[in-house]
Amino acid sequence: MTKASGVVALLTDYGLQDAYAGTMKGAILSVNPSARIVDLTHDIPPQDVREGSRVLAAALPYFPAGTVFVAVVDPGVGTDRAIVGVDIGRHVFLAPDNGFLGFLQDDVRRIIRIAESRYFLKPLSRTFHGRDIFAPVAGHLSRGADLGRFGPSVKTMKSLSHAKPRVLRNVVEGEVVSIDRFGNLITNIPGTLVPGKVRITVGRRTLTGLSRSYAEAPEGRLLALVGSTGHLEISVNRGSAHKTAGVRRGDRVLVTRSRR
Amino acid sequence: MTKASGVVALLTDYGLQDAYAGTMKGAILSVNPSARIVDLTHDIPPQDVREGSRVLAAALPYFPAGTVFVAVVDPGVGTDRAIVGVDIGRHVFLAPDNGFLGFLQDDVRRIIRIAESRYFLKPLSRTFHGRDIFAPVAGHLSRGADLGRFGPSVKTMKSLSHAKPRVLRNVVEGEVVSIDRFGNLITNIPGTLVPGKVRITVGRRTLTGLSRSYAEAPEGRLLALVGSTGHLEISVNRGSAHKTAGVRRGDRVLVTRSRR
Amino acid sequence: MTKASGVVALLTDYGLQDAYAGTMKGAILSVNPSARIVDLTHDIPPQDVREGSRVLAAALPYFPAGTVFVAVVDPGVGTDRAIVGVDIGRHVFLAPDNGFLGFLQDDVRRIIRIAESRYFLKPLSRTFHGRDIFAPVAGHLSRGADLGRFGPSVKTMKSLSHAKPRVLRNVVEGEVVSIDRFGNLITNIPGTLVPGKVRITVGRRTLTGLSRSYAEAPEGRLLALVGSTGHLEISVNRGSAHKTAGVRRGDRVLVTRSRR
Repeated sequence: MTKASGVVALLTDYGLQDAYAGTMKGAILSVNPSARIVDLTHDIPPQDVREGSRVLAAALPYFPAGTVFVAVVDPGVGTDRAIVGVDIGRHVFLAPDNGFLGFLQDDVRRIIRIAESRYFLKPLSRTFHGRDIFAPVAGHLSRGADLGRFGPSVKTMKSLSHAKPRVLRNVVEGEVVSIDRFGNLITNIPGTLVPGKVRITVGRRTLTGLSRSYAEAPEGRLLALVGSTGHLEISVNRGSAHKTAGVRRGDRVLVTRSRR
Repeated sequence: MTKASGVVALLTDYGLQDAYAGTMKGAILSVNPSARIVDLTHDIPPQDVREGSRVLAAALPYFPAGTVFVAVVDPGVGTDRAIVGVDIGRHVFLAPDNGFLGFLQDDVRRIIRIAESRYFLKPLSRTFHGRDIFAPVAGHLSRGADLGRFGPSVKTMKSLSHAKPRVLRNVVEGEVVSIDRFGNLITNIPGTLVPGKVRITVGRRTLTGLSRSYAEAPEGRLLALVGSTGHLEISVNRGSAHKTAGVRRGDRVLVTRSRR
Repeated sequence: MTKASGVVALLTDYGLQDAYAGTMKGAILSVNPSARIVDLTHDIPPQDVREGSRVLAAALPYFPAGTVFVAVVDPGVGTDRAIVGVDIGRHVFLAPDNGFLGFLQDDVRRIIRIAESRYFLKPLSRTFHGRDIFAPVAGHLSRGADLGRFGPSVKTMKSLSHAKPRVLRNVVEGEVVSIDRFGNLITNIPGTLVPGKVRITVGRRTLTGLSRSYAEAPEGRLLALVGSTGHLEISVNRGSAHKTAGVRRGDRVLVTRSRR
């Protein structure tokens, strides 16, 4: 990796209600007292590797070169699943080998199976590798340790099948992949596939055209726009599209090129 | 502003459930790796400029000189609303020009309309200026950049009408402006307007006298005291005044000078 | 204490919905701009000194030497309760004298009653000592100030009675002390008291044997394992034991040595 910046960004499903995330931070600082720890989020829905992966991919471009990303969404903890360290040059990542980092694809320069147990905390728990493995290794990486110190090189890692929109003649079919705190429906349809003259159907609701901002629609009315991750989003000006449209994650979204 | 301390304090309505706040932090660190980022809160109710403003005003005195405050409660994002940088000498603030910073009033030395787009991230989103405009500009300010680099001076900015208590002969009439996590009812009545011998009415409940601490009232009983922001608060010792009194934000509070 | 590391770890019941925790951080940074502030958690249930104490005890070993721990779970704020500073050599702690730090027991080298008011913020609130007393004192301690500067030595502090498991011939009787975000039931039964061949009863449910990881049981099935704090936990692979078993905090847990 590029020279370590000292920044360690954390993404987990631990939540903030318990002290799991806080304890990981103590364990990182125990190795690198100068680490600059940033919470990306700890509210990934429990065990939702796909959502965690989507969130990390969207946030990635905004972090300084030399950031260590620690992604712990780990339903397989305590089984024989591996932990991988992945170097893309600009950044290094630690995650369970469960497909989480598959989205990095062609940017990957090196994959290490994290196996050098002398860097792990003792006693090593079976349920909290975030504290006992990920944290100390991240601490070392953030001080500039080379990833290769932590285990053998491996050729591949698991990947996930992310639902991709289907593109037909006049129609793009995708789905709602996430609903944010505001009730905005975030789809997997890239903005580049959505023309200006368009009809969008989600649930029982249909809307026409793309807006440029939330405030372009009257309060309470559904609107569609290209959101901050570059994907189509359905929102309600000063309201919640999730509540207004009664739509849930996984629901289908149709984008039809409109003649009117 | 006084010499930048490196501290950047964030206040938004983004919540912590999504990675919006975390991504802003990455964007700040990308400009200033030494920035010391503090979350004031990300749980301002969506679009509630008035509440965000009240929270910031209360927290302000407790931050070191040279702090950069970033306040993103921004229902107008993507419209032609301006973003202002406001210098009060001791601190500098970034917020949408929607009245948020109006409470600074006479302390304001300089207002800049943030317009120098070469400091903004590209591509510039229409919905996430927290990441694309506020964060990089805050990063620069926290390294000591002069506010004037980011746009032209302007003479005024919008202000909000904060509900002020009405003072009549024997009576002060105010309202519940906020309800905190504990269910404490925070009013807009300054403690200086509340004499010791007093009758306080809120909702259907009446209580007499001011307490000096939560524990002065029996458990479960409503009590009134001057809270940590210097305003009258209604609480319940080891309980929730909100639940006990069935009172909501905006409900009227009457303080009557008592003869008994 | 060992040389201060600059790390200040916070544990409160303030929640993150309000700006109380954020304001404490500003107050700490006002005294020590280089303090490295870590949130252990702010979601201790309101006034739950026992749970806060349990969480702190579990997290403690994972923080670097020279950490200042600030624990504000303080139902007695504003009464004549004392605030204690406790030095165990490796770390120093600040907490209300309400039993919170009693678990430190024999590790305690020195107890100071925090009383030097020239270090407190003015005006001193009656309800927010986290900001006005704990924060500035923690700021000074994190810069290396000796604990003795902040008040007189005292011989003792209050302690709590933590529910301890009862050990009978073939049976260990304990209880559920906490339920985490995942619905895992955390008990007060040390893993050392749980043999491999064992029958565990909680609520109306009985399960046999200890698992080594969450994934050893079929999805949806209750399992028992020794968790990350070294105590018996009841979990559900990819689910919530709390929901599945209908068990609540305080419910009894029986561990019976099994012959089958």
